[in-house]
Parts: sequence; C-alpha cells; structure tokens
Amino acid sequence: MYRKAAIVGIGQTDYSTNSGRTDWQLALQAVIPALRDAQVDPSEVDGIIRYSYDAVTPAMLVRSLGIRDLRFFADIPFGGTASAAVVAQAAAAIACGQASVVLVYRSLNERSGVRYGRAERNIAVSGTDTTVAVTDRSPAGAFSGPYGLLSPGQVMALWAHRYMYVNGLTEEEVTRTLGTVAVQQRQYANRNPDAMMRDRLLDQETYEAGRMISTPLRLYDYCLESDGAAAAVLVSADRARGTRSDAAYVLSGGQSLTRHAEPVTVYLRDLLEHAPDQAISRLYEEARISPQDISVAQLYDATSIMVPMGLEMYGLAEKGCAWRHILDHGIGPDSPVPVNTHGGHLSEAYVHGMNHVVEAVRQIRGTSPNQVADAEHVLFGSGGSSSVILGRG
Amino acid sequence: MYRKAAIVGIGQTDYSTNSGRTDWQLALQAVIPALRDAQVDPSEVDGIIRYSYDAVTPAMLVRSLGIRDLRFFADIPFGGTASAAVVAQAAAAIACGQASVVLVYRSLNERSGVRYGRAERNIAVSGTDTTVAVTDRSPAGAFSGPYGLLSPGQVMALWAHRYMYVNGLTEEEVTRTLGTVAVQQRQYANRNPDAMMRDRLLDQETYEAGRMISTPLRLYDYCLESDGAAAAVLVSADRARGTRSDAAYVLSGGQSLTRHAEPVTVYLRDLLEHAPDQAISRLYEEARISPQDISVAQLYDATSIMVPMGLEMYGLAEKGCAWRHILDHGIGPDSPVPVNTHGGHLSEAYVHGMNHVVEAVRQIRGTSPNQVADAEHVLFGSGGSSSVILGRG
Repeated sequence: MYRKAAIVGIGQTDYSTNSGRTDWQLALQAVIPALRDAQVDPSEVDGIIRYSYDAVTPAMLVRSLGIRDLRFFADIPFGGTASAAVVAQAAAAIACGQASVVLVYRSLNERSGVRYGRAERNIAVSGTDTTVAVTDRSPAGAFSGPYGLLSPGQVMALWAHRYMYVNGLTEEEVTRTLGTVAVQQRQYANRNPDAMMRDRLLDQETYEAGRMISTPLRLYDYCLESDGAAAAVLVSADRARGTRSDAAYVLSGGQSLTRHAEPVTVYLRDLLEHAPDQAISRLYEEARISPQDISVAQLYDATSIMVPMGLEMYGLAEKGCAWRHILDHGIGPDSPVPVNTHGGHLSEAYVHGMNHVVEAVRQIRGTSPNQVADAEHVLFGSGGSSSVILGRG
Repeated sequence: MYRKAAIVGIGQTDYSTNSGRTDWQLALQAVIPALRDAQVDPSEVDGIIRYSYDAVTPAMLVRSLGIRDLRFFADIPFGGTASAAVVAQAAAAIACGQASVVLVYRSLNERSGVRYGRAERNIAVSGTDTTVAVTDRSPAGAFSGPYGLLSPGQVMALWAHRYMYVNGLTEEEVTRTLGTVAVQQRQYANRNPDAMMRDRLLDQETYEAGRMISTPLRLYDYCLESDGAAAAVLVSADRARGTRSDAAYVLSGGQSLTRHAEPVTVYLRDLLEHAPDQAISRLYEEARISPQDISVAQLYDATSIMVPMGLEMYGLAEKGCAWRHILDHGIGPDSPVPVNTHGGHLSEAYVHGMNHVVEAVRQIRGTSPNQVADAEHVLFGSGGSSSVILGRG
C-alpha cells in the first residue's frame, strides 16, 4: 500500500467530560469538518472503517451524510488497538480498488456515557453465556476476573511490574520514568488549545503526590476519560496530489496478533520478549525507512507505561533501555523522538487513538501546536497491535 | 480481485438445536477440518475475518490454533448481511498482499444460546444509552420499537407485504409462491445428510397449514434456529492452483449500503425500486459474466420472501416477476436457476449464511448432495448487502 493513499482531511469535536450530545451528533461534528477539510462532498464517501466499539454505525452515517453508494465497510475489533488499523485498512481498501473515499472515525461519550476503565465492563465470561456485548472479551478473564483483576488499568499495572522486573528498575526509577512521560505530555497539552488539560500544570512533585491507583501506576499515569469524536478522510494518492500539497501519505501500516499477546486483557503478555517483531519489521520495510527516520511518534497511551514499552517495540529506543532514554532525554520537543505532541490520552483527551491520528496528520502538515521541525515521517503505534507510518508528499 | 484468491477448504459441524458445546469448540470443529481440507497448517493462518456478531474472537483462534503471526483481522457488521462480505474481504486482503491464508467462519449456539429472532434483541435504543451490545442496531428502531415492531421476522413480513403491493399479488399467489420456495428447499434438504430437516417432509398442504407468524409469513417461511459452525479457508490463486484442481475462485465480491436500505431493521426499505443496482452491476462486471451465466444461486434466506426478492435483485428474474418465475419454474433441480441447494436457512440450518458459502464451494467442486450439472459460476448473495461470485479454475 506504499504511498497509494493519503489522509487529506481531519476533524474533531471539543473534548469534555459531558458533551450533552449523542455519539451520533459527536461523530457528525468530527466527520463533517474532516470532509470539508478534504474538499470531499459527503455523498462521495464509499468506504467506512469503524472501531467495533463505536455506537455510530455505517448505516447511521449513510443516512446522515447522504452517502449514495457505500461499497466497503468493516469494523476493527479490540478497542484502542484498532486505532492505527482503521487507517491501515482504509489505505489498503483504496490501494486495491475496494473504495475511493474512506472515512475513519471514533465517537464516544466515554465519560458521561459508557466508562471503559470500570471493572464491570470486564467481567469474566465463559461457556455459552456470551452475547454480542462480549464479542471482544478475552476468555482469559474467566481465570483472572474472579480474583479481582477486572480493569485494563489493573492489567497495565502488571505490565509495568513486569517491565520493572525484566529490566531491573528500582521503584524510584520507575516513578521518575513514568513521571517524566506524564509531565512532558502535560507540557505539550498546555500549549494545545484543544487539550482538556490545557490549563492544568503538572510537575514531578505533583505527579508523585498523585494517589496510587494500581501499583506502580498513580493517578497521572492513567488516560483521561473524555466525551468527543475525531475523524479522518483518506483518498487515493492521485487524488490527494490534486487536492492539497500537505497530504499525509500512508507509507505503511498493519496489524499484529500473536499468541499470549491478546490486546489489553492478557496479563501474561510477554512484553518485550515477544513483541510482534515481524510486524514491526514489515512496517519499516514497507515504508522504506528505518526507526532512525521517525521524526515524531504518537504512541497509544492508555497508561504511561505504554510509552517506554512502545519506544522499545518500535525500535525507537534499545530493548530494555527506553526508561533510561526517557530519563536522559525525555520525550519533549528537544528529545530525539518527541512523543504524543498533542498531550496524548494522558493530557489531551481519550479518543481511543483517533486523536493521535489527527495529531500525526498535523505534524505532517506542519500545523501541530507543538510542531516538530521538518517532520517527515510520523509513526502512530498502538502497542504493536496496529501501526501506521505517515509521510510527506 | 478477479481470480486472485480461491476457497480451498471448507468445514462444518453437525447442526442441532442443542450442541452442548461452546461457540469456541464449535468454531474449532469447523475451522480445523476446513484447514485440513485446504492442506494448510493452522499456524500458517495470517488473516481472519469475523462476523461482528461472533463470540469467537481472532485472539481465541490465535491461541487455539497456534497461529504465529496474524497480520490482518477485521469484523463485518450487520449480522447475516456479512456473510458474503467475509469472503469478499478475505479475497481482497489476499489480492492486495495484506494476508496470504485467510480464515472465515461463523459459530453460534443460536438455538440453545442467544436466539436472534426474539424481540428483546431488537429493543429500541436512543441517545447516549448505547453500549457495545447495541453497536449494530439501527436507530430507526427507536421509532418503531415502541409500537411493537421488534423482531426481524416482523420486519420481513412488511417486506413481503410491500412485495405483494408493488407487484399486485393476491394472497393466494403469495402463499403459492412462498410455499414453493419452502417446499422445494425442503426437498433439497431431504437429500442432504447434513440438513437438520433431512427426515422431515413438507408439501404445499402442510406449508399452508403452518400457523401464521406475521402475515403473510407462516411457520415454514422462517429460517430454522440452529447451533453449529461453518468455515472456509482462502489462499492466493497461485497457491490454490498448486493445491487442488477444484478450488473455488473468487471472481468478484462486494458490499452495499444505501440510504433507506439499512440491513434488516428498516421496514421503509424501498425493496426493488432502490435495490443496490450499482453494486450488482459491479459484481457481474468484475466477474466478467452476466446473470444468465449463473449456474446455481445461494440466496440468504432468513425468510422465504428473500428468495423472490433476491432473484430480482441479482438479475436472475425480471423485476416484478420473480414470483411468477417461481410459480412457473420453481427453484428445484430442473429450474433455470436452482436456489439454496443445501436446503438453505429454511431447511438445512441457520448458520448466518456461512453454510451457503460451504454449499457454493461444494457446487463448484461437484460434491453437493444436490449437484447442479456443470456448475461453473455460483452466486452467493445476502440481499444485495454483500455478494460474491465463485467460479471454477
């Protein structure tokens, strides 16, 4: 799919804790600006890729946008792990002629509506007692749920423990590492007018004073809970060239699901030892670049520990050394690889990674509130489960 | 995607009203024989396309089958309308290099577990009161649900009314037309050892004596409720040629979602007036054949009315005339276009269309219990929402 499709439109709503609107309204308030930005008439959309978790169906968008002939639609399962896959599959659909204008979006009242971090959404299921409601749940929960391991936030605390153990970090080192991630993403957010945390300062002392949620993760290690929506529009590279000079071309993208690496829920995940190396190699090979060429990275951050894990997984720091890299260089504007320059899930908003896509495109366009100079290649990675590399025209 | 991929393996479980097994077990009991039939080692699977309704996730199959590197996975929304789309998208994924061995399947305890025909699964939802459980539901239900229009079986009765009204059928004509469909599909099932209704005879008199469920649809106009699973394996055309001489090549396939044509739930559906003609034209163009070349058709049959509707939609009978075609020629072995030669959902089993895929492949192979002589092109269509044409090598 190398350079066969490009993102030419992005849109987002305001981000809040109580939108007062339906998911459907929010979706349209992101999608319509994205289509306008792309100079695409809504009726022209002929492909839609949705997160399987989204309450807004392709049928609802067909109706609201006046789409005449939707000829390609699919859902990507596993929640936030979908976020780069929606872009990758949209690009692939365009590359092989299944659609010509593809819409991707995420709309959720995650704070005022269904709160994903709560335990009741992860109750163990087993046997035939399954419904459509649980089609994404891991059966592994049947073994851990009864013992109280119920929320993604708890599972990720176990990831952090494993990261500490495997790499021999002290408690103080992990606190300083994760604090640096939280504080520097907050600083990005403080310069981003769209960020929910734009006016809320955070320093290491405040970070450390945050209450422990699930050891070693504190309050500020967790993503926000947000109401809002974000969207992007992809067209063929040919059309993109005729539309705008700052289109964000899809250089590569893909998914990965390996044994013992089920998204989020499986605490047995072998972390860095069994990272989806094959998938990451394919990603860079197809994009015809190496990790050293990445100008800026958007790394899916349900919790702060995903940032050092992501840096290692994507070859942006040596395996076992991302914590040291973060302590030495940080992830700020002057670091070797600035990360989550919108503030990420920790400090801009939790839009299930779709806001990372929007920020990745802004970086390619040169319009980020925390613009990295000459950003030529932008990675967006969701824990190795899905990844995409965008590049300039 | 013309002839770039082929189905080289099929598998199915026994079909029953009480499997006594989990969806997961059933899936494996269909998938493993399909992989063996395809001469593919389970670890080689690198793509999975699922119905979004399926309780068996790609992660569960990765674990059970020992898949090493799953690099492409997606869900197709809207239940049974997905059934041809899973094949079409699998073929497209192979055609454009996203995967090389793609598994498609449907596993459900639809009778002993979640029964899809019941009213409570279709309760109206509105506003932000949405959960993952309802991500496929149409908001139109908010307007009709409170008045008691709650089940797909009721909606399809309205389709039948509209078909009668638009085409000027008398009550007797619709009874004879739909009775012919039910009786002739039952006759196919009586010769199919896998069919749930293999030993149960049905004639027009018994059909007419069936109790009215939702006028004009009687008991025998409705699909069965089944526990079971079916699966298929796709590989590239190159690999298929080296594997087996009777591979079923994907000649074309696609999806369609148009305004006022939301799958199943929308009773406003303009039926034949607004059938997805563009999608059907693309289907035949890409396959490089015309409707006259179809040897045998598998038409998604949640109810019998979908058969005359499907014949017209796919150009296998003139618009407005399928009922007359059925009265004159039937859909049996000697008719111009034999339909649902396994017995379909009405008489083999309700596996959400995946059993139609299995039968389509058997027809290409020449191994159907109701084999059509020289079946060269087999259509499988799910009400225009998704369609695929298979052909010989």
